[in-house]
Amino acid sequence: MNFKQAVFLVIAISYCFSASHEHRTPRLSLLRGGLRKRFINKPTTISGSFTEYFYDQTLDHFNYNPQSYTTFKQKYFMDFTHWDGPQTNAPIFAFLGAEAALGPDPRIGFMTEKAPLFGALQVYIEHRYYGESNPLGSIKKSLENTTIRGYFNSAQALADYAELLVYLKNNLSAHNSPIIVVGASYGGELAAWFRLKYPHIAYGALASSAPILYFDDITPQDAYYSTVSKDFRDVSESCYKMIQNSWSEIDKIASEPHGLALLSNKFNTCRQLKDSDELKDDLSYWYAAAAQYDAPPTYPVSQVCGGIDGAPNGTDILGRIFIGISAIWEDKKCHNLIQDTVDETSQGWHWQSCSEIVIPFAYGDNTMFPQSNFSLSDYLENCRHSFGVEPRPHWITTYYGGQEIKLVLEKFASNIIFSNGLRDPYSRGGVLQNISHSLVAVVTADGSHCLDIVSTRPDDPEWLLNQRKTVVRIIKGWINEYYATLNATHKVTL
Amino acid sequence: MNFKQAVFLVIAISYCFSASHEHRTPRLSLLRGGLRKRFINKPTTISGSFTEYFYDQTLDHFNYNPQSYTTFKQKYFMDFTHWDGPQTNAPIFAFLGAEAALGPDPRIGFMTEKAPLFGALQVYIEHRYYGESNPLGSIKKSLENTTIRGYFNSAQALADYAELLVYLKNNLSAHNSPIIVVGASYGGELAAWFRLKYPHIAYGALASSAPILYFDDITPQDAYYSTVSKDFRDVSESCYKMIQNSWSEIDKIASEPHGLALLSNKFNTCRQLKDSDELKDDLSYWYAAAAQYDAPPTYPVSQVCGGIDGAPNGTDILGRIFIGISAIWEDKKCHNLIQDTVDETSQGWHWQSCSEIVIPFAYGDNTMFPQSNFSLSDYLENCRHSFGVEPRPHWITTYYGGQEIKLVLEKFASNIIFSNGLRDPYSRGGVLQNISHSLVAVVTADGSHCLDIVSTRPDDPEWLLNQRKTVVRIIKGWINEYYATLNATHKVTL
Repeated sequence: MNFKQAVFLVIAISYCFSASHEHRTPRLSLLRGGLRKRFINKPTTISGSFTEYFYDQTLDHFNYNPQSYTTFKQKYFMDFTHWDGPQTNAPIFAFLGAEAALGPDPRIGFMTEKAPLFGALQVYIEHRYYGESNPLGSIKKSLENTTIRGYFNSAQALADYAELLVYLKNNLSAHNSPIIVVGASYGGELAAWFRLKYPHIAYGALASSAPILYFDDITPQDAYYSTVSKDFRDVSESCYKMIQNSWSEIDKIASEPHGLALLSNKFNTCRQLKDSDELKDDLSYWYAAAAQYDAPPTYPVSQVCGGIDGAPNGTDILGRIFIGISAIWEDKKCHNLIQDTVDETSQGWHWQSCSEIVIPFAYGDNTMFPQSNFSLSDYLENCRHSFGVEPRPHWITTYYGGQEIKLVLEKFASNIIFSNGLRDPYSRGGVLQNISHSLVAVVTADGSHCLDIVSTRPDDPEWLLNQRKTVVRIIKGWINEYYATLNATHKVTL
Repeated sequence: MNFKQAVFLVIAISYCFSASHEHRTPRLSLLRGGLRKRFINKPTTISGSFTEYFYDQTLDHFNYNPQSYTTFKQKYFMDFTHWDGPQTNAPIFAFLGAEAALGPDPRIGFMTEKAPLFGALQVYIEHRYYGESNPLGSIKKSLENTTIRGYFNSAQALADYAELLVYLKNNLSAHNSPIIVVGASYGGELAAWFRLKYPHIAYGALASSAPILYFDDITPQDAYYSTVSKDFRDVSESCYKMIQNSWSEIDKIASEPHGLALLSNKFNTCRQLKDSDELKDDLSYWYAAAAQYDAPPTYPVSQVCGGIDGAPNGTDILGRIFIGISAIWEDKKCHNLIQDTVDETSQGWHWQSCSEIVIPFAYGDNTMFPQSNFSLSDYLENCRHSFGVEPRPHWITTYYGGQEIKLVLEKFASNIIFSNGLRDPYSRGGVLQNISHSLVAVVTADGSHCLDIVSTRPDDPEWLLNQRKTVVRIIKGWINEYYATLNATHKVTL
């Protein structure tokens, strides 16, 4: 593998950890490892209780062959604690699951903290094929079945949410309770798309860190990695330069006798490296992770750069890199390469990115990574190699749109909040400017991926508290308007 | 079969002519026979020329199993005669085919007559599985294949239109040409739904006679047949009464010795009737057809009632009925019962109505037909008997909405014209009041099914000409607004 190819894989690995080293594709989800802890933290002050349910979900909503009538158990949770009930048409907050299992405690800070302010019912729905919501019991089995895995895509997932929410509204006699859908990252895309496709079911959407424009040619391909690089450069020019210079140093040592053993030792990897790309992939992943989740109070980019810049005098370049990067590692005895970690999410996302979620990532000139283009043909070939079928790289924009979004949606659609933090490299594929008065961008300069929907911390900065307040204020406005319209409509009807 | 069951079949037969006498389901399409001629008449002044094309269409847009990558040839036509071209971002009118083959001349009066006013390209796309756009070469073969027929539904059809229109815009370098989709009856539903689901592809929709609200419990089930009855009563109270009294007379004669032979002879049927229901089904079909297409200059309801009321003194009740109804028959030697006619459209619609297009028709008290309720369980059972699978009767409202349409769409969506004529019994399931300033109802008291989009005739009444002018004025307004927004957007972007 030459370095250019390696870099392509590096791009990939930052967001997906697939079973095959040869083919890793971008992934949107919350990252695993130490940084993730920040984002799956449970609400600090948990009140109320939630109950788990299962719904007999339609396997294929867009087909009427006998197999499509098959159902699978879809898991969801409800928390009635704060709900004012159907009599007052009190709202329903529905969290749309993304590429991970939900539970055992599915709750999300934003939902639990804000539900009391709205008297809202909380519903959390697991995404098809993840967790227990899998037609064949495990993602591995489903992905091995070429027929069953075909139903594993976003349009089917949205239709699941639609069918289940309609069922719940009927079941709860909550016909006039407005539903606000909430999602983050890929789940944020689902929330925005759900409002666009099913406005009769969701009255509004909070789409947190949803890069709905990172498809086809809408967003520059190097947007993600140039933002990672900018995040580092903003913190420390010398750190940025050090990382930029480290790649050739890694290759140099790797090419020497016993060089790979030396590198493995230097980075304390649990197994010996097979080539320099393995190390470069791993490091690139962690730089990107640090930038994506560069949140208070720890600010991982500062942690990494603090290590690199603050290493004792005389420490060589790779020694500095190791001190920096290991500041955000949580490995105990030795460092497990990220590409050695395979879990349900990485497997599921591998399929999703090899069917429809094709995000074209490239490293441009202005990054701390070596320059490398995105090759769609390589991408398709890799997917064909993994799954025997090719992705449909233009389907997302055909089904959901994205191009010329202001022109298209300014006078069509309403009630979507696109929240983003600009330190999140995915924010560059998000909606960062208002489209209309009710399709609004809530942007913070210092925010990171999904930061607005996680639990409040006592040390949260003012700008973050304000972002969350803004979101609440906007949703309150929608709901007030909804009740006014509901009353007016029913007065006319009656 | 008791009479109640028979009446249920009568309801059905008016809009569907399936292979099985035991199970006929409602159909939306333009009717066959004499009345249809009015509505498929070619433009009287044909100018320009059209060309036939085929597109390799995806069989299953919502699946990534190997079979879904299969393609089929979808037929479409283009007429460039009046197009001002992509340089000026001149519009594209796209006629969305419905449950019938397109061609050999696919052109529709509204499209050909109005295209010159807009400098518009005309595109006509055949609906999947009809005509030549069938994956297995014929609708019969496709319906016999339980796998292939599963893909035969409206969501897949809309996705076909989306994929093809995106392809055409790219191919013609017409990225900024606004597309206006046009459809009538079921095709009108498709046009409205297409604008709702794919606003990034269609900038506006003309949905002619589209009963998008005739699903679930949105519209009273007896709306259709009470309107048929009203149309007759408005023309002649005595005619209405005569029809109302005729059913028991038919039953009485049928129950007598040689009664069926007598009835067959009286109504000049090409074969002997097997029971009185056959005759009642056939007559009900023609009454409904007369009302649905009660258009100038002939006004079939008046023709029928003219025959009934104007029969020579001493003519008995069934003699009057025959004189009336045969005024709109075009049979030459003898009368072919409508249920004996099976064609591609009736076969295809049988499937569509047994999968998702479940329209609940009932006869209420205030009709000239005997009272009869709609039985969903009978409907489902009939479909299960025919196809081995049950329809999903709530899927249309889950996927497309419909309930509380003003509340849902008043501040969401734009640029749809719902045109209806109130003599059309389907108009009762249409949108008859403005939802917002750009989701507008254009209604004529004297109009009938699809009348506004057929070719202009020299003797068209003023109100019809005005309806068409209103439609043109509204679409012009959209397109002007589009260009203004386009220019403003691109000024900001550049």
